[in-house]
Amino acid sequence: MTGEQRGTVLVTGGAGYIGSHTVVSLLEAGYSVVALDNFTNSVNSSKNESIALKRVEEITGKKITFYRCDLLDKDAVEAIFQQHKIDSVIHFAALKAVGESMTNPLLYYKNNMIGMINLLEVMDSHGVYKMVFSSSCTVYGEPDTLPITEENPTGNVTNVYGRTKYFIEEMLKDAVSADPKWNIIALRYFNPVGAHKSGRIGEDPTKQFTNLMPYISQVAIGKKDVLTIFGNDYNTPDGTGVRDYVHVMDLATGHVAALNKLDQQHLGLKMYNLGTGKGISVMELINTFERVNKVKIPYVIQERRAGDISAMFANAKLAETELGWKAVHTVDEMCEDFWRWQQMNPNGYKTDQVNGHH
Amino acid sequence: MTGEQRGTVLVTGGAGYIGSHTVVSLLEAGYSVVALDNFTNSVNSSKNESIALKRVEEITGKKITFYRCDLLDKDAVEAIFQQHKIDSVIHFAALKAVGESMTNPLLYYKNNMIGMINLLEVMDSHGVYKMVFSSSCTVYGEPDTLPITEENPTGNVTNVYGRTKYFIEEMLKDAVSADPKWNIIALRYFNPVGAHKSGRIGEDPTKQFTNLMPYISQVAIGKKDVLTIFGNDYNTPDGTGVRDYVHVMDLATGHVAALNKLDQQHLGLKMYNLGTGKGISVMELINTFERVNKVKIPYVIQERRAGDISAMFANAKLAETELGWKAVHTVDEMCEDFWRWQQMNPNGYKTDQVNGHH
Repeated sequence: MTGEQRGTVLVTGGAGYIGSHTVVSLLEAGYSVVALDNFTNSVNSSKNESIALKRVEEITGKKITFYRCDLLDKDAVEAIFQQHKIDSVIHFAALKAVGESMTNPLLYYKNNMIGMINLLEVMDSHGVYKMVFSSSCTVYGEPDTLPITEENPTGNVTNVYGRTKYFIEEMLKDAVSADPKWNIIALRYFNPVGAHKSGRIGEDPTKQFTNLMPYISQVAIGKKDVLTIFGNDYNTPDGTGVRDYVHVMDLATGHVAALNKLDQQHLGLKMYNLGTGKGISVMELINTFERVNKVKIPYVIQERRAGDISAMFANAKLAETELGWKAVHTVDEMCEDFWRWQQMNPNGYKTDQVNGHH
Repeated sequence: MTGEQRGTVLVTGGAGYIGSHTVVSLLEAGYSVVALDNFTNSVNSSKNESIALKRVEEITGKKITFYRCDLLDKDAVEAIFQQHKIDSVIHFAALKAVGESMTNPLLYYKNNMIGMINLLEVMDSHGVYKMVFSSSCTVYGEPDTLPITEENPTGNVTNVYGRTKYFIEEMLKDAVSADPKWNIIALRYFNPVGAHKSGRIGEDPTKQFTNLMPYISQVAIGKKDVLTIFGNDYNTPDGTGVRDYVHVMDLATGHVAALNKLDQQHLGLKMYNLGTGKGISVMELINTFERVNKVKIPYVIQERRAGDISAMFANAKLAETELGWKAVHTVDEMCEDFWRWQQMNPNGYKTDQVNGHH
């Protein structure tokens, strides 16, 4: 099957962590990809190309059309839709640092909400109504019951980043009620980790990271002395926080499954959890990382952080039943694959950036 | 006390219904007023001035600086702050038609949320942190308990218009948490009715109105044949919906009281109900209008409208205790004053618009 036949997908935030991995799966599934990114959370080469997407082209042997573009610049988005016959959109582009969202909330509301509104308006004016939206398990806030199904209440969100995701979900509900032409899946990711098996692409935090695995990995490689664990007195088996870590390549295939679904069926708006269904504690993740990668991760325990949630993991049955998708990678693979990426790219994509002239 | 001494207030949406009445009270209280409006919900003269604000100048004998300006045009807002030393802002400007908000949700999210974000960003960059924001009792949704205090839960909102107000309140909470310099009062209006005693300014709906009193008044003056009452089987004394109608001149003094408070005390963010504390049914309002104005209002009963709430009225004690404000106008006055405005201006401000050349 050729790219023409599967159609052309616009991937916003395509140069980012989940975006770049999803582009691999889209290309492998036969979709043509037009990607845009503003390089807020990703790295550009001296030629203003995406280093991650250049590597995706090498991995897949296929071409990606790339635009440096900010969704706040509606005219620029409009120009892309005029240039290409877009069949559907996967919308990753957003600011995503929880801590930064608390200190600069207006920036987050502005970027994430206006970016979405502009995109929807341009899509509508070009008759494009299929979209997969990057939502997050943060919309559930501190859950009353575990595992979390899509029916769990949303809205009692503990941080601004998550509130932008919740507000956008609500806005999408209203948009779909007003215009039934929309056909949208919101994927509520649990905790993405891991990297592509090649070790060529992975998570390259451009800001002070708050995610656990890059932090573990920086300690393992010696860039940080010690890992800080925030809280070991949670009501969990070993006292550390419990999350549902899901391999980024599983998320990638989840997006392809969602697009397939939208190609086959008109859903209006539907939400799906993307997780493994298994809760893993911080301590278990550290132990696994040490065991499979044969490294030591010194750590210290500090107090809980405000807004952190003790335990959350998905009931992922709905995605399995309706999208035919299931996470298949183990925690061992998440740790191995992330470590391979880290070792092959101790400075993330920055080495390529510096050497971009050669 | 002169305008200089009370300071300069920027009033966004100043040409609108509540805006124009509030400008009367601000000028009478000695504030200088810079007003802006984009004329979405108000009427401009052939000279691109606000007809309502020209009349406010006649009523008060004071001058208003006016700009035709849309808050989505951040540069234009910036220019106003560069031109004037603004001390505080009263932010009315918003789209407000509930029905339209359901059919065009993106327009409402875009206008109301981006307008607010742009305004906050410009204020911040000019060191202006005092704001009174027009919120609404719609943020409470269908209330579990009556009367409604400021502690009632918010967020279970039944329409998009109200959701924009709720989202903005949440955004303001985050902005104030991130930067304690902000000093903001959100006023949750109940149902504004009535007009200035002069009959020179009043509610002039630019769109198909859904509010009750303009509708009653149009029937009374013979522009509509009959009033439609949506539902007479609610769980209320006479079966029709119950609301807390509050005279627009009481709302106007409520804004002055809120500004006074912000001048005296740093609150961070505080919400206040503005209502009378008394629930009035649709049927009672019609009967009062007929009695005080000696007119007949033929009506028909139809089914309830989706999203309409049976009964809501305020506990208005907090504003009384903390702002020293209380609604003083009776329902009789609300009906008399609105009818005077309607009779003196059977076509609203449009007569002046047509005759603007003379």
